[in-house]
Parts: sequence; C-alpha cells; structure tokens
Amino acid sequence: MKLAVIEGDGVGKEVIPAALEVLDAFELDVEKVPLELGYDRWERTGTAITDDDIDILKECDCVIFGAVTTPPDPNYKSVLLTIRKELDMYANVRPIRPLPSVKGIHDRTDFNYIIVRENTEGLYSGIEEIGEDVSTTKRVITRKGSKRIADYASKLAGSRTNKLTIVHKSNVMKSDKLFLDVCRQSATDAGVTHSDELVDSFAYNLIRNPWNYDVIVTTNLFGDILSDMSGALVGGLGLLPSANIGEKYAFFEPVHGSAPDIAGRNIANPLATVLSLKMLLEWHGDIAEAAILEEAIDSSLNLGICTPDLGGKSSTSEVGEFLANHIKTR
Amino acid sequence: MKLAVIEGDGVGKEVIPAALEVLDAFELDVEKVPLELGYDRWERTGTAITDDDIDILKECDCVIFGAVTTPPDPNYKSVLLTIRKELDMYANVRPIRPLPSVKGIHDRTDFNYIIVRENTEGLYSGIEEIGEDVSTTKRVITRKGSKRIADYASKLAGSRTNKLTIVHKSNVMKSDKLFLDVCRQSATDAGVTHSDELVDSFAYNLIRNPWNYDVIVTTNLFGDILSDMSGALVGGLGLLPSANIGEKYAFFEPVHGSAPDIAGRNIANPLATVLSLKMLLEWHGDIAEAAILEEAIDSSLNLGICTPDLGGKSSTSEVGEFLANHIKTR
Ligand SMILES: CC(C)[C@H](C(=O)O)[C@@H](O)C(=O)O
Ligand SMILES: CC(C)[C@H](C(=O)O)[C@@H](O)C(=O)O
Repeated sequence: MKLAVIEGDGVGKEVIPAALEVLDAFELDVEKVPLELGYDRWERTGTAITDDDIDILKECDCVIFGAVTTPPDPNYKSVLLTIRKELDMYANVRPIRPLPSVKGIHDRTDFNYIIVRENTEGLYSGIEEIGEDVSTTKRVITRKGSKRIADYASKLAGSRTNKLTIVHKSNVMKSDKLFLDVCRQSATDAGVTHSDELVDSFAYNLIRNPWNYDVIVTTNLFGDILSDMSGALVGGLGLLPSANIGEKYAFFEPVHGSAPDIAGRNIANPLATVLSLKMLLEWHGDIAEAAILEEAIDSSLNLGICTPDLGGKSSTSEVGEFLANHIKTR
Repeated sequence: MKLAVIEGDGVGKEVIPAALEVLDAFELDVEKVPLELGYDRWERTGTAITDDDIDILKECDCVIFGAVTTPPDPNYKSVLLTIRKELDMYANVRPIRPLPSVKGIHDRTDFNYIIVRENTEGLYSGIEEIGEDVSTTKRVITRKGSKRIADYASKLAGSRTNKLTIVHKSNVMKSDKLFLDVCRQSATDAGVTHSDELVDSFAYNLIRNPWNYDVIVTTNLFGDILSDMSGALVGGLGLLPSANIGEKYAFFEPVHGSAPDIAGRNIANPLATVLSLKMLLEWHGDIAEAAILEEAIDSSLNLGICTPDLGGKSSTSEVGEFLANHIKTR
C-alpha cells in the first residue's frame, strides 16, 4: 500500500505521528509518502496545496490526514475541499459508536450508526454569486451524484442490519425530491428496508433515540451538521473518525479540526485519528488488523490510558505507544 | 386585539381549543376570527389557502396557529410558508428553556436561550430549477434580509444578557460572509457582545453546553434544524413554542406538526401552543398576564397535571381547563 501522510496544522502534527506508530506496529507492507499541506505551508510558501500535490496524491492508494487550519482569507484554497473534489471522493462515511468507559449524553450505549454523506455537491458546489447586497449559493443535486451515494449507502446497509434512513428537506426544497426518489429506488433495488425523515425532526430524533438508526444517507451539508452533532452522543468530537471514499481512492481523517488552542502540548486525543486508521485497514481488507486495533483501543480505555479530555493523564504519544505495544505483544 | 385563529389539521384541532380556553380566562378584549386552512380544507375544497384568506389575515393584528399537514403533492401550496411570506414575518423566534419537572437529556436545567431564525430567504427562496438529472435551489442571502434579522437579534440580546452568537457556514459558502458581516456590524452598533460559530460544530456545542448561549441568530434552514434539535434538550418537540414576527404583524405557533398518529384522541400536549400564547401576550404588551400564565404552567407541571408524553394522565382539554381555572381563581 502506498499511503500519503498529511499531518497538516496544529494537533495534526501530533495525532498523525501517534497513529503512524500504531500502524507501524502491524509491520504491514506500507510505503509512506509524507506531504506538507495546509496553513503553515501557506504562510511559508504562499500555497496551501498545488496541482503537483494532487498528482502525488493520485499516485498513492490512500491518505491519512490530520487536520488543517483554514484562515478566513478569501484567497485561501481549502485543502480538504480541494482534495475531496480533485480525487472525486463522493462518499463521506462517519460511523458513530460509543467507546467503552466514555460517557456521552445518554446512559444507554447500544447504538451504532453510520452517516453516509454525499461529498461532492449540494451546497458545496462552489457556484456562488457574491454581491454587495445579494449573495447566493446554488445547491446542486444531480441524479448521478445521488445515485452513487445512494448505492454506496444501500450496499453498506445490506452488509449491516439492512435498514436505511434517507434524510432530506423535500417539503421545502423540491430539489431534494430528486435525492429522495433516487435513494428510495436504490434501496428498493438492493432489497434494503428504508424510510425517510425531514432533516429538522430527524436531528431531534437522532439525539433522542440514536438506537433507532443504522445507516443514514443524506446530502453534503446536512451530513456535515448531523455528524458533528453526533459527537455529543459519544462523548466528544475528538472521538469521531471519518473516511472519504471514491471509486478507487480513499482518504481517512478525524472529524475534528486543528485545535490551535491545545496544539503543541502533546495532549490532543489521538483516538479519532486511530479510529480513522482502523477504517483505512478495513477499507484495505486488513480485517484482522482492524479487529486487533479495536481491541487495543478498548483495552486502553478500560485501563484509563487516555488523554485529559477523557479524564485521563496520558499524553497523545503515550496513548499511541500503549496501542502500539498492545499490538506488538499480542 | 383582533386575533386570527387557525386550528389547521390533526392535533391542531385539539391544542388550539385548549389554548383559547386559557386565553379566555384572562377576559381580555379579544375579537377572534376563526379561519379554516390546511389539508382537510384542501381535500374538501381543493385549496389550502387563498388570497382572500391572506386578506382576512392582514386585517387581524396577529394569529394563533395549531398545525397543518403537508401532503407530498407538488400542487399543494404550503400554508405556513405562504403566510410567512405574504405577511413578511421575517423573524422566527424560538425560545428554548427547560420546564419544571420535565427531563431533557441533561441534569442541569440552568439554560435559557433563544434561536432567532431568518424567516424569509436562504434556502426557502423558492428559486429552484427542477430537472430530470439536475435540480437546484438557490440559497439567497441579502443585506436587507440579514440586517433586519440581525437588528432584531441584537435588540433582543440587549434586553437579556447582551450576548449574541452568530451561526453560519462561511468557510464553505462565501455567501454566508455577507450574513456574518452584517450581523457583526449590527451587534457592534448595538453594543452587544458577539461571537460566531460554524453551524456544524455549533450543533455539537449547543447540545453539549446549552448554558453557554443566550441569543443565537442564524439563517433560515440552519434555524429550522437547530430549533428542532433543541427539543431534545427540553424533553420534547411537543414543548417548543415559536413566534413569527414582522414589522407590525405576528404569528404564534407550536414548533411541532399535526401529528396524525395521535390526532383525535385528546392526548396531544397543549403546552407548546400555550407557551406560544404566552409569547403572544408578551408581544402584545400583556406582561402581567404572561407572567401569570407561566406560573399556571409551572404549577400544572409541579402537580403532575400533564399529558401522557410527559408521563401524566391528563387529556389535552384537562390541561387547558386546569390552566384556565388557575388563572381565574388567582
Ligand atoms: C472544514 C470544512 C470545510 C469541512 C466541511 O464542511 O466539510 C468539515 O467541517 C468536515 O466536516 O469535514
Ligand atoms: C413545515 C415546514 C415548512 C417548517 C419549516 O421548514 O420552516 C417547519 O419545519 C418549521 O420549522 O416551522
């Protein structure tokens, strides 16, 4: 496997080394291709990402990514959005599952759902008209874009409990009717039980009864909001992993950002990144390794080997070391 | 006061009579103008709302509204959206506050925030292109629309703890930069302390730490999602009131819908509507009455006089009666 490694900015420079230590413990055949992208580089060189970087990324099989800082400068090109777009990674997959000994807002921990977010269109179209008195953004829903994300979600549902929830706002946006219709058809074709909910009441239902859901498919910005919101159910945004998946390519990243407020202190929680690594292993077919990694994470949490945000006393690198040792001595 | 009364469909036909019984207990000088609008009427007559209805509404000072059922029929004109638009009610105001003896997802109950949602533009522009393969919706942000909602929110913040949070997604939609800039300027001009958050991480923060917020201002659809989501914090969507406010006109409605599943059984919780009535009294300047109503609600909850959704045994009309009696015998 040829793996591009992007630390990025802030805590990205701490959580990625920890995750790599864990990866190294498996002694898999991985060629690492480090790339410096993001705000720090922009400050130094004037570019955050270039076409050459994209070419290098395209030669790799997948990416592990830390976090980048995005300044409010209108000239700054978002690294994340550029990569998602250039590599056409249409599925943003975010599993939400409580971890042992970590408290979210509920006492019940019997939930385990996955948000499958369309990752290339919707309100992220970039089609905008910016004026002094009126500014607009075009929300674009295509049949093709809806079909591939719907098929991805239906297939995923088929491999789990065969239950799909389609989230939309077609009572207000007729454009969402296209998304809804395509998703329904895809689920029906795949023999998947499906229902649909309006995004507003869905947000309420998801917080109240997360155990009612399994695979959730939705448009780009709704997925963005619902996945961050889900962080509250599992005890922290710092615990959510994600995968951006394309036809052949994939990109794994924690949902959290570069967290400049705690950067440089070796206290950032590496688990979202390590869980993203677990998704990478699964994607690559290293199922046994993924299972061992999960076991290592569970064991660290049960022993209280965790960073301060979870009430622990360990540093970022100590958590990485513990996991690596657990894997090696197994 | 000339008050239009719209029961609408489903539980609307139960919660409005309960709320009117409460209103009557105050013996205020109110002329009621009943209007039948919505799905039931559409089935009978083929129209849910007409220009004549709008004319009648315009002659009233304000409206109390139950709920309407919206069928997925593309020919059906949304009653709610039509009224909001025709009467240019630009501010959708949704206070979120725990009620006594009602449990939400937190043990702490020391929060009390208000979502001020822009109610006329954004993704509700109705500017859509519907095609076989591509459908789009134009998200419209105007300086004028942003300014009046920002001024409303800043003024409200000034009457409370002087703290405003602006919620947007300007890191992805440059069009939100206009909204953000206008809100900042308005708050600065009003001498209100303000900060801003991206809608995704804000959804997370709001669920985790609702006590950190006071007045929140945001665009139309974000406000829609965030206010429903907030229902989880106060023990149920069935408890959230709202006001749609224009230059001279106002419209009060529970956030919940027509709930066909429980309609006709006299078990719907009337409190969201009664709390909307409380907002109506405040808007109209009947401050003493609003305070008495709040006291009556608190007392009903402390005595366990409530509908089954809150664990009680009372019917919709019994709750209305209790509140009315409490007011009369005070
Ligand atoms: C950083 C931002 C552009 C990004 C998004 O909105 O997609 C982030 O919030 C995410 O969810 O990955
Ligand atoms: C019924 C629907 C059109 C409406 C909206 O989206 O505004 C509702 O969800 C609300 O929040 O009042």
